[in-house]
Amino acid sequence: MTHDSRQARWENRTEAPLAVASLLYLISYAVLVLASGLPGAWRGVCLSVIFAAWAAFAVDYAVRWRLSGQGPRFVRSHWLDTLVLVLPLLRPLRIVHIYEAVQRRQGRPRLPLHARVVTYAGLSVLLLGFAGALAVYQHEHAAPGATILTFGDSVWWTSATLATVGYGDVAPVTPLGRVIAVGLMLCGLALLGAVTGSFSSWMLQVFTREDDERPPGR
Amino acid sequence: MTHDSRQARWENRTEAPLAVASLLYLISYAVLVLASGLPGAWRGVCLSVIFAAWAAFAVDYAVRWRLSGQGPRFVRSHWLDTLVLVLPLLRPLRIVHIYEAVQRRQGRPRLPLHARVVTYAGLSVLLLGFAGALAVYQHEHAAPGATILTFGDSVWWTSATLATVGYGDVAPVTPLGRVIAVGLMLCGLALLGAVTGSFSSWMLQVFTREDDERPPGR
Amino acid sequence: MTHDSRQARWENRTEAPLAVASLLYLISYAVLVLASGLPGAWRGVCLSVIFAAWAAFAVDYAVRWRLSGQGPRFVRSHWLDTLVLVLPLLRPLRIVHIYEAVQRRQGRPRLPLHARVVTYAGLSVLLLGFAGALAVYQHEHAAPGATILTFGDSVWWTSATLATVGYGDVAPVTPLGRVIAVGLMLCGLALLGAVTGSFSSWMLQVFTREDDERPPGR
Amino acid sequence: MTHDSRQARWENRTEAPLAVASLLYLISYAVLVLASGLPGAWRGVCLSVIFAAWAAFAVDYAVRWRLSGQGPRFVRSHWLDTLVLVLPLLRPLRIVHIYEAVQRRQGRPRLPLHARVVTYAGLSVLLLGFAGALAVYQHEHAAPGATILTFGDSVWWTSATLATVGYGDVAPVTPLGRVIAVGLMLCGLALLGAVTGSFSSWMLQVFTREDDERPPGR
Repeated sequence: MTHDSRQARWENRTEAPLAVASLLYLISYAVLVLASGLPGAWRGVCLSVIFAAWAAFAVDYAVRWRLSGQGPRFVRSHWLDTLVLVLPLLRPLRIVHIYEAVQRRQGRPRLPLHARVVTYAGLSVLLLGFAGALAVYQHEHAAPGATILTFGDSVWWTSATLATVGYGDVAPVTPLGRVIAVGLMLCGLALLGAVTGSFSSWMLQVFTREDDERPPGR
Repeated sequence: MTHDSRQARWENRTEAPLAVASLLYLISYAVLVLASGLPGAWRGVCLSVIFAAWAAFAVDYAVRWRLSGQGPRFVRSHWLDTLVLVLPLLRPLRIVHIYEAVQRRQGRPRLPLHARVVTYAGLSVLLLGFAGALAVYQHEHAAPGATILTFGDSVWWTSATLATVGYGDVAPVTPLGRVIAVGLMLCGLALLGAVTGSFSSWMLQVFTREDDERPPGR
Repeated sequence: MTHDSRQARWENRTEAPLAVASLLYLISYAVLVLASGLPGAWRGVCLSVIFAAWAAFAVDYAVRWRLSGQGPRFVRSHWLDTLVLVLPLLRPLRIVHIYEAVQRRQGRPRLPLHARVVTYAGLSVLLLGFAGALAVYQHEHAAPGATILTFGDSVWWTSATLATVGYGDVAPVTPLGRVIAVGLMLCGLALLGAVTGSFSSWMLQVFTREDDERPPGR
Repeated sequence: MTHDSRQARWENRTEAPLAVASLLYLISYAVLVLASGLPGAWRGVCLSVIFAAWAAFAVDYAVRWRLSGQGPRFVRSHWLDTLVLVLPLLRPLRIVHIYEAVQRRQGRPRLPLHARVVTYAGLSVLLLGFAGALAVYQHEHAAPGATILTFGDSVWWTSATLATVGYGDVAPVTPLGRVIAVGLMLCGLALLGAVTGSFSSWMLQVFTREDDERPPGR
């Protein structure tokens, strides 16, 4: 019990500062990647923000591991947190949790499940797509034979990938760019699954309701 | 009540003229985009029709806002109407509503849910696809390095996008063309979701019925 | 009643000969398209078979229209038959019906719904894909700037289209080829819907069964 | 009964050695395809391992056919085993079964259905994708006009195919490569169906649970 309550207190207290750290991390990364003509001093500021945010994530992970009292099992049972520690670009995904917390605090009734899934899928895809477009642009734009030359190309390619359309007029050519691309394809598959699943669950729900409203004799 | 009834009366009266205005808007836009050798006088006619239709949409929006007595909340609670005001090319989507109203007035029984969803998805995709193909053609066909050179190319590219096939033999190259393309991809995802959702709800329905028909002992 | 029974008798009697006619139609069309070096006499034979089969379809349509006693409404209520009359390449789809009839006659128990849907979807996609690949090859292989040069290319392109993968290494360039392509895309969407719908209905069924098997206390 | 028990005993005893044989088969095939500069002696070792594994599969198939006492019907009722005998690259799919057996032996509770389907689909797609990328690379990399030149290209192309994205920046050009590609597309369609089906069944399950938790008066 004391473990649980101390953990809950820690998570309550660190939620807001960590959300700010996530946002600062993403912004600094974006500035670093996109503003090629940035003076050295500003590059230093961005890099320090990135490392500070990463350090904050690591400390948070360590404290929660300690408080959980779980030992090595923690790494596996909190695999999403572990993954986020290794790939902090996935961190902004927590903003989805915060969005839900804010909605709850404002006393709004929860949305029906399918609306919630579509909202979360949309938010996640937007954040992951932005982070992915940044990472692909960083690794591709200077590679020999690259077709993704501007950030606009990268966003365009990311959209076509997430929608599983895949024109192929621009496409990554470096190994690291292609690894990120495969990650984005998986997001696209999940997005497709979420959209389709919501649609069919929504239709089944409407359908069941219509069945209930009809006189039972029919 | 009076609010509601006045609103309902307004919507009943304006339904037909606004549908005509939507159609005239789409036709004038199509003529303007496709008929490159149009004499100046006719271009003027088309432009006036476009602006007149837009004005009619704006007046309708303002009157309904007034009648609702909702204040600024109206903009958000009627976000679809607001979006249509900003992007009148989406306006023909209301034809779907009119199709439903006509069906109801003729006393036809409502189609089962999955048939209705497929019909609406089909109609919406057809109208949005036509409007999207027009808009992409307008922004692309004269751009340097463009591959979408004729309206036929644009329709072909739109079909491949909406089906999430995405050959990439032709593809938009201008920023605005790509923004429209992302909108069409979202339509494609929704279409896929509608088709798949209808299929699975239809199958589950047939399945449940077969289960009911079997003797309970099996 | 007499109408119905005469119609049923007609359909029973013409089922087998019409299936043979469909098959002959498809084979003759394939021979005509693929065997470019065919001597004139054989071309004549193929063309006569095609026209004879078409005539048989037309006579069957006319007789059934007459027997139904429906007047002009028949054209609309039997829209699939009307479409097949105009596009006889879709005719082999009736083989699906025949497959079902043969299965029933052999006294086999009906497959569960999802297996049946996957079987029908697979058969339809195979037949339509073959007919589509033939038609696209016929219209494309001699067009200027074409990338679909052999029947193998056409089959490869058809597969990529039906799976909504769409590489775009080869793609139709003629207007008629592209119209057929859009038809194939629609088939691909329906196939995707059928596969996905079957999967989700099958999973829900297994799931419900597992729920039933568990002791109700859990 | 004796048939069944002898069959079960055989399958229990051969499970582990056959899994090792499958793994050795896949590894030897990978070494043979990827290590182009392999000395002749090692090539011989790999080839012998491949043929030995194949022989083991054939013996297992023959023994099980004998023990089943079914006659020619066995070939059809065990069509998956027959297919694996002809295409031993599909053999590693049995690892999925072994994964399940190991999980059961360790006394772990079974995962809920949708998690299980996603796990199996993921494992199968990983194994089939690896085998497919190897086979496509083998048949393509030396073909004239090929775009898949390295194993990295082949993995990249396989990922884009399985996610039904299909950029088309690289694509197979040989007939055999394209046949394998069509097989991978079918896997991609099934994967999409599995992801989507799991999503919608999971959502329906959560939904039903929420319905149950609400007071029945609402």
